[in-house]
Amino acid sequence: MLRKNINIPSAEVKMENLRKAMQLAGIQACIIPTTDPHIGEYTPDRWKTREWISGFTGSAGTVVITKDKAGLWTDSRYFLQVEEQLKGSGIDLFKTGLPETPAFSEWIASELSAGDCVGIEGEVFAASEAKSLIEFFSGKDLKVRTDFTPYDSLWENRPAIPANPAFVLPERFTGKSCREKIKEVLAEVNKNQADITVLAALDTIAWLFNIRGNDVEYNPVCLSYAVVSEKETVLFISPNKLTQEVAEHLQQQGVVIAGYEKITGYIQKIPAGTKVLIAPSKINYRLYSALSEKCVIKETTVHPADSLKSVKNETEIEGIRNAMRKDGVAMVKLLIDLEKAIENGETVTELDVEEKLQKYHSEQEFYFGESFHPIVGYGAHGAIVHYEATPESAATIQRDGILLIDAGAQYFDGTTDITRTISTGEVSETIKRDYTHVLKGHIQLASAVFPAGTVGMQLDVLARHALWKGGQNFLHGTGHGVGCFLNVHEGPQSIRMNHNPATLAPGMITSNEPGLYLAGEYGIRIENLLLTVKAKTTDFGDFYAFEILTLCPIDTRLIDCSLLSPEEIDWLNAYHQKVYDQLAPLLSQEEKEWLKKRTDL
Amino acid sequence: MLRKNINIPSAEVKMENLRKAMQLAGIQACIIPTTDPHIGEYTPDRWKTREWISGFTGSAGTVVITKDKAGLWTDSRYFLQVEEQLKGSGIDLFKTGLPETPAFSEWIASELSAGDCVGIEGEVFAASEAKSLIEFFSGKDLKVRTDFTPYDSLWENRPAIPANPAFVLPERFTGKSCREKIKEVLAEVNKNQADITVLAALDTIAWLFNIRGNDVEYNPVCLSYAVVSEKETVLFISPNKLTQEVAEHLQQQGVVIAGYEKITGYIQKIPAGTKVLIAPSKINYRLYSALSEKCVIKETTVHPADSLKSVKNETEIEGIRNAMRKDGVAMVKLLIDLEKAIENGETVTELDVEEKLQKYHSEQEFYFGESFHPIVGYGAHGAIVHYEATPESAATIQRDGILLIDAGAQYFDGTTDITRTISTGEVSETIKRDYTHVLKGHIQLASAVFPAGTVGMQLDVLARHALWKGGQNFLHGTGHGVGCFLNVHEGPQSIRMNHNPATLAPGMITSNEPGLYLAGEYGIRIENLLLTVKAKTTDFGDFYAFEILTLCPIDTRLIDCSLLSPEEIDWLNAYHQKVYDQLAPLLSQEEKEWLKKRTDL
Repeated sequence: MLRKNINIPSAEVKMENLRKAMQLAGIQACIIPTTDPHIGEYTPDRWKTREWISGFTGSAGTVVITKDKAGLWTDSRYFLQVEEQLKGSGIDLFKTGLPETPAFSEWIASELSAGDCVGIEGEVFAASEAKSLIEFFSGKDLKVRTDFTPYDSLWENRPAIPANPAFVLPERFTGKSCREKIKEVLAEVNKNQADITVLAALDTIAWLFNIRGNDVEYNPVCLSYAVVSEKETVLFISPNKLTQEVAEHLQQQGVVIAGYEKITGYIQKIPAGTKVLIAPSKINYRLYSALSEKCVIKETTVHPADSLKSVKNETEIEGIRNAMRKDGVAMVKLLIDLEKAIENGETVTELDVEEKLQKYHSEQEFYFGESFHPIVGYGAHGAIVHYEATPESAATIQRDGILLIDAGAQYFDGTTDITRTISTGEVSETIKRDYTHVLKGHIQLASAVFPAGTVGMQLDVLARHALWKGGQNFLHGTGHGVGCFLNVHEGPQSIRMNHNPATLAPGMITSNEPGLYLAGEYGIRIENLLLTVKAKTTDFGDFYAFEILTLCPIDTRLIDCSLLSPEEIDWLNAYHQKVYDQLAPLLSQEEKEWLKKRTDL
Repeated sequence: MLRKNINIPSAEVKMENLRKAMQLAGIQACIIPTTDPHIGEYTPDRWKTREWISGFTGSAGTVVITKDKAGLWTDSRYFLQVEEQLKGSGIDLFKTGLPETPAFSEWIASELSAGDCVGIEGEVFAASEAKSLIEFFSGKDLKVRTDFTPYDSLWENRPAIPANPAFVLPERFTGKSCREKIKEVLAEVNKNQADITVLAALDTIAWLFNIRGNDVEYNPVCLSYAVVSEKETVLFISPNKLTQEVAEHLQQQGVVIAGYEKITGYIQKIPAGTKVLIAPSKINYRLYSALSEKCVIKETTVHPADSLKSVKNETEIEGIRNAMRKDGVAMVKLLIDLEKAIENGETVTELDVEEKLQKYHSEQEFYFGESFHPIVGYGAHGAIVHYEATPESAATIQRDGILLIDAGAQYFDGTTDITRTISTGEVSETIKRDYTHVLKGHIQLASAVFPAGTVGMQLDVLARHALWKGGQNFLHGTGHGVGCFLNVHEGPQSIRMNHNPATLAPGMITSNEPGLYLAGEYGIRIENLLLTVKAKTTDFGDFYAFEILTLCPIDTRLIDCSLLSPEEIDWLNAYHQKVYDQLAPLLSQEEKEWLKKRTDL
């Protein structure tokens, strides 16, 4: 059936209308970022303003529009895609990360004249970001208006705010009642010498209230804000999300319920002299500036609720161990199918692999959905770090080279995230060497023992040193925090080349995913999730180590054993023994035999 | 000969007089820190105010005096010593680093009442420190006076400002003229969008002007300030330091000379609107506050002159290589003497070792002095990280256990700093295991290869992981920068468990000194100096590595070879081969034979 022609305004028309609105408002430059009012990683359609104006669909980028120019700033991941998508839009591409590219703020300063005004929509900027822009522009004699929000009238058929029902995650999964969590958060707020705190991060709110939702792709959260104080804890959420179950649960836990849009008014009424704890990078500027100047604002880089969320309790840990077994079973079934299909000369594309894995995920108990868009990259596609196969791009797996699979699922009892790079046939010695160097890094980090107080940046080199010695590297982080039936990326901890003051505490789940990407050739990544555990206490204090949560064989056909130390071989054998012991009881005889073979070194 | 009895006022009398001065000035609490107007590591006697009032001679500590209480805050290195030295002083000890110990600022806030005033001598506080104190106290409704300087009248026979002559360090050692360095500093000042900069760090000034002096123990620097701007470069220095040679040199290099005390007046007259670059942690508060409010102050964490100083040029590197050979020869001679003496049952004390090493240092070409007070600790003394042997404490070396020697010298062509831990006879298997773990860390860090942009905190784990795996650790930094005939501790780079944003650049000299300290038993440390060098350039960018500068055998009698990997054994053999090749031509036949034996694994 033919699609009807819908009259979608062209980029030029949109831009013209926006410029008229700018002129009316006395604004000479307008900045449109990628974020939403909750400063999340995935933006609901409602707030894809940058995509609406530019046509660029990447997950990171900023558009700037002046009277006669327009630019889009994005990074190397999107250079190819964005050039295609910007064609005919009248928007110039600015490639961030290149030394010659000015920051968009610098560019604006160079385009505008003293006394001019920059317009932003404060609601979709983190308070920290908006504040630093305001400071920067004021140093350049430029004004900033943070209430420039013309999009509702300019954007025809703008998507509505998501209105999916929320649901309660029972204590058998959360291990702790909402009431207890509120008490803990409040204790931390008081420790920070504050009386009240405002939360806008959806995963933190979902964790705190033991509710989940369906408003954001891959993240089982629901749009809401929250305020916690000695006097009351208020959840700001639309009535259409409040099933009877959720309403009763919140009531039982002593939570006051208010409408989603009531948050601003509530904040404005916080009495003078109240000490308000906020994390400026986790709250939007509109909320931030709604606070009375007579309040005492206590700023924190890491909100204590995020730290509490990141340390999983025993119930959550048991849940994630169970989710990992399910995930391992799904991966084993996929890998067996894939091997067979390749052996039999069947046509298998990257999309087929995605679909099959999702099918095996969905057959597992408590399945809710995928935890992110899977990355399945064969050959050169594996070298594109954020590759997403499309019907047009999807490669057919051949009987040589390697295939990178990075995927995960949301189960009620845990969130998973695994990467395996597998041989699909003949591979060169160079690939084996590279794979083994990545594996060495993976093993070194997994084997780390470290004192209490250690931060991720201190351990990061363990995952990279085998690569660095050969003049290789990977330019993404080594590890991110993972939620419990929550966001697959969470803070506060990370393992990266950059400094992050959050320490690695027992109970945290963090990924271990070194890789190597040779553009046009292949990509390698090996990812397991790690649980920080207590290792020992000595005269030198407490020492921690990692328990490996992920259960799936690491492809031994790609290993050059001569490059591994005896300790590294021992590690691999011990890991594979654990994988076999944990998964075998859940597999058929045939699957067990395959697993036996793939876990033998 | 008997010493005459001099009538030194007791601590009580000094305190009483100080309290009178506080009362007159309307001050309820007075803070006396350890630093001097140049915020250096070693304080000239003139500014040892904290020692004068308290009797405590340690290198770190802060005294606080209120109307009826007095406290001294210092860390665990000094707990034993300070208790002895504070006896009868009326000053209470506050042990920093313990969870129950309040910060001195918190303590002051708890002792004083709203509206009270805290007095400090702005000249001996870093601007950053004073500013944060002022901010803290203002949040507690306390005033701060930064001009409380009663010590000239209270302190009988207060030592004068050091008045030793300066001297010129010729370009054959510095490799670059003063004029060129000024040009480079100015270019960096301009890059920081500033017109002028003020320098107070003595080593930076000595480096910039190619002069040296004798005003501070172990640091070959002379008291001075400097200002660099497009218009002129001014060195503020007392006439009594200006030999004709120095005056002519400065004139030739286009430097304006002014009196040491003229700096404040000069700064006050910097015209309104001038952009002034300063590093608030490297300039005292009095100078900082002398800047007109109409100047635009550009603050930087790391002053660009310090970064320039830290990157050694080819001439400096050749110099340090030469200094290292001399240092190696001195160490070899000492170690041979020591072995013989122990074998022959002679009595050798820790002080004898110090003296002998200093003698061998002093016999080398271009010797100027020691670069710090040597640490020679036998047995349990080795576990005291900052141990200094005294005639009372000096232990006699016995034919069992281990001896730690940490020493260095100042030569015109370089500054050295080495630590070796040697066997003096029988040692237990436990000592060998611990020594080997320290050595493994030393080797892992020395073998590092890392991309441009790496900071010390990223590499630090390499030096610690072998210890961490056994639940051990050392609580000092792994590496500090080292000057070129300048301070043995310099910035900006370091290798530590703490974050420091300074990257490790080619040409920097950094120590590699992991250790292990078991209180009451023994201490182990192995220290070499490392030069950062370019290793390779690949598609992933520039990679750096370390060239080992220090030349002295590592005691193989203490190694448990079964704990070393084949690569680690290769490293040790290659290092020893280099030590032998470099030192043998400078040694006698007998010394060569000893070195051959001690460099065989």
